Order: sequence, then structure tokens, then C-alpha cells
Amino acid sequence: VAEVKFTPPATVAIGGLGVIGGSVALALKERGVNVVGFAGREDTALARKAGILTAETLIAAVRGAELVLLAVPVRVLRQASIVVHETTTAPVLHVASVQRASSLGFAPGEWVPVGTHPLAGSHRSGFAGADPQMFRGARISVETRASAAERAAAQWLWTTLGAAKIELRDADAHDRQVAWISHLPQLASVGLAAAIAGSGEKAIALGPGGRDATRLAGSRFDLWREIVGANADDVAKALEALEAEMRSMREAIVGGSDEALKKQWERARAWRESAGGKQ
Amino acid sequence: VAEVKFTPPATVAIGGLGVIGGSVALALKERGVNVVGFAGREDTALARKAGILTAETLIAAVRGAELVLLAVPVRVLRQASIVVHETTTAPVLHVASVQRASSLGFAPGEWVPVGTHPLAGSHRSGFAGADPQMFRGARISVETRASAAERAAAQWLWTTLGAAKIELRDADAHDRQVAWISHLPQLASVGLAAAIAGSGEKAIALGPGGRDATRLAGSRFDLWREIVGANADDVAKALEALEAEMRSMREAIVGGSDEALKKQWERARAWRESAGGKQ
Repeated sequence: VAEVKFTPPATVAIGGLGVIGGSVALALKERGVNVVGFAGREDTALARKAGILTAETLIAAVRGAELVLLAVPVRVLRQASIVVHETTTAPVLHVASVQRASSLGFAPGEWVPVGTHPLAGSHRSGFAGADPQMFRGARISVETRASAAERAAAQWLWTTLGAAKIELRDADAHDRQVAWISHLPQLASVGLAAAIAGSGEKAIALGPGGRDATRLAGSRFDLWREIVGANADDVAKALEALEAEMRSMREAIVGGSDEALKKQWERARAWRESAGGKQ
Repeated sequence: VAEVKFTPPATVAIGGLGVIGGSVALALKERGVNVVGFAGREDTALARKAGILTAETLIAAVRGAELVLLAVPVRVLRQASIVVHETTTAPVLHVASVQRASSLGFAPGEWVPVGTHPLAGSHRSGFAGADPQMFRGARISVETRASAAERAAAQWLWTTLGAAKIELRDADAHDRQVAWISHLPQLASVGLAAAIAGSGEKAIALGPGGRDATRLAGSRFDLWREIVGANADDVAKALEALEAEMRSMREAIVGGSDEALKKQWERARAWRESAGGKQ
């Protein structure tokens, strides 16, 4: 990340106080940064109870802030961006799970805030799921097109929140990556839960491993529909690859092909063990 | 569970001190029960360091014990059972992940120990992964064919270890159930990890959700090969169902069929939310 003269913002405006925006708000407040949030009624009420200052409008939240973070659903990001861009000259970052401008509904040539997607999150949603520790150790993918000022702002924001690594990547590379490492696990978890549900077996009987494997199936459809819809081409490729792996596995088990199954398993296991961290 | 006059055993013999047998040994020891274990060289060395008494032979471990637990790999369960049955008249229980006698390699008419499978466990293996808290809150599936004395012994053992629920179920029903709630999540996790590995994306980039969904892919092949091989018919059915769910999902995403995707998702989500507990 480039070195620029950067003064940490005294006030950060956050549009959207769901699980991500709410977590950022709580974490910044803990670190003594002024936060002004703007969100829907329910998240606003919960955020206020947690001591977060909120504004009546997005414009009011953004005025006077030296950094703006848009943590709104994908479907309203373009509209929120237009409002913010008309109101401030401060750096504006977003945290959407996809970053290609066209996928986010922007027209060619329109101004688009800079994506800084944290690979963190929760199957919970809304401010009720917010957690100031959420970004501890997280990896953040910042768009390469960011200006020096925007990079410095992103660097300050995410390291302040405890992120472990900030990676510069263009929107195409980012969206391809998240199709595999984020969207595919989400969809696999839903498919797995749907398959078991269809068998008539009860979820209460799941052991800890089965709980882990299906945890993401507790995520909200409306948020994921937007994300997956915005990244449909890459997601479809990833789903095809998963189907192929499951088919090979079944054929190896039915055919008693120990060697084929072992190769696939050891490849998966070696890859997973390279994840490091808390596993 | 039937009420019988049952005297808690002063000494429990445990054949196999891997992640399950080792956890039982540590937990019983903590509760002041004498344990004599028998295991392979590596697990024996670790168990001794942890203060578990071990014997030189399975026969020596079993002699003098009032309860025997076989926690050995599926491939050696029949052989261990024969040895134990010739040595003792104490109740003998096993913890294998499948319970049909034929799946465990027993011939018709042979004596078979009673299955008491804990839906707990770990992607770790060996005594190194043992944890005396492993069975806290676990559900245990005990075979209906167990005698009153065996049921009482199973009841004592698993409640002593902190299990939340003991369920009587015949071996067929058990094996069908675990194909869906245990073996399918295991295989789905391996398939998912294999698919992402094939994309070239690194495991280090996984967020917490992706880590959860792929955690079971860290499990050992040799143990699972036996389990899945012993339950191949039910497992193949479960895998087919998962493939069908993944295919529908992909078709809905590619075709933009929001309604189909929403139905599938909400079905999966409602099922998963019914799991209760720590989620």
C-alpha cells in the first residue's frame, strides 16, 4: 500500500448498520473514533441502544465525516453511492461481496466507491449479529483502482479494526476468488442442508461436524440472492466443479475404487490443512 | 431405558485409545473410574503420558474389567470382539460409526458387541486429539437389541461422560441416519474442499464460514474409507440427493429463477435453524 500523508479521520460515517456495518461501528467506537450511522428502522434502534450515534438521513450522516463506509445491501449500493458522492469529497469505501461495477448495477462511466471486502462475516444478519471483534485477523480485498488517499483510508480503517492482511486485487480477480472461497461454500452448505432435510432426518441429531458443515445454511436468502445473482457466471462454474467432485466421489464409493477416492480425499485434505490459523 | 439393578463398574477396559477411546479414558479417569486401555504403540505412549493405565494385550486389559468398550477401527472390530468375547462375561459395547453386523464384517450368527455410537467426534484423530469434554451434550445411539444389562451399562457410561441423550434405535435405522447426518456432511466437505482446491484458490483466503464448511475435509481418509465403505448403499443415496440439490441450485441461479432458489434455501434454512443448541 502506497505511503501518503494520511490524517486518521475524527468522524466516520457508516451507511448501513447490519452485521458488517454494525460491527465496524462498534469496533470504531471502542477505539474512540466518532461514528455516525444511517440505517433502516430496526438496525437504527438496536444501534442506538448500543450507543451508536445515528442520523436521520444518509446525507446528514455523511456531512462532516472524513471517511464514509457503505455497508448497505447490494441492491441499494448504487443509489446510496450517488447520494454520498453528491454530498462529500471524503474517501468512500464499500464492503459489498462483489466488486465489478456492472455486477453492482452501475452504468459505464458512473462513479463507483472503492470496494474493500472483508473476508469475515457471520451467518447472522442485522445489527443484532454485529460483533466488534469480527475483523480480527480478517483478510481484506481492496480494489487496485483505489487512489492513494483511498488506499490509505482503507489501510487505516481495516488495520484499526484488527485485520491481518490487506490485499490489492482488481474487481474481476476479486469476484472470481469469492465465487470459489465464499459463495461456493455458502451454496454447498445450503444444498447439503436441503438434501438432509429431504431425507426426513432431524437437524437436532447433527454432531459437531455436521453442524459446522451446514452452519452457513442459516444465512439469509435475500442478501445472498443479490450476491450470487451479481456473480452468477463465476458461481455457476464453481457449482459445476462441485457437482463433478461429488459425482466422482459417489462413483468411487459405489465402484469400490479406493485409489480414486483416496486421491480426491488427500488432495482436499492437503488443501484444507494449508488454511492454517484456528482451522 | 429399562431399570435393572446395576452396579457401576470399578474398572472399565477400553480397546483402542484413538480420538474416541482416548476421550472416554480421560473422562472416566477424571471421574475416578479405573481405566485399563489397550492400543497401538503411538496412542499407548501418549495415553501413558496422560496417566492412563495400559495393558500389553487386549486380553490383559479386559480381564478384571466390569465393562468393556471397543473403540477400535472398523476393520479390526470383529477380531477384537472375538478375543474379548472369549475372555469376559462383562457387557461389551462398541462405538463404531456403523452398526449393521454385516457391514462390520461379522458372519451371520456370530456374537457382536452392542453398538453405542456417540454423535460427537473430531476431525482430529488418535489420542493426540482426545478431549475428556468430547461427549458433553452428545447424543448416543444405542442398539435396541441390547440386553437390560447392556442398556444399563451404556446408560451409566454415557451419562457419566456427560451425554445429553441416549436413543434406542436398531442398526438399520442407525446406519441410515448416519449416512445422512454424519457421512454425507463429511463427504460434502471433502468434495467442496476438492472443488476449491481445483480452482487454484488458496485455503488461507477462506473466511470463517468457508472454514466451517470445509473443516471436516481435514479428517483422515483411512478411517472414513472404512466407514463409508461399510455404509455404501445408504451413502450413495445421500450423495445422489446432494447432487440433485446442487444441480437444481445451479439451474435456478443460471436461469434467474428466484422463486425456485428461494424455496430450496428457505427449506434448508428452516431445517438448519431447528438444530438448536450452539448452532
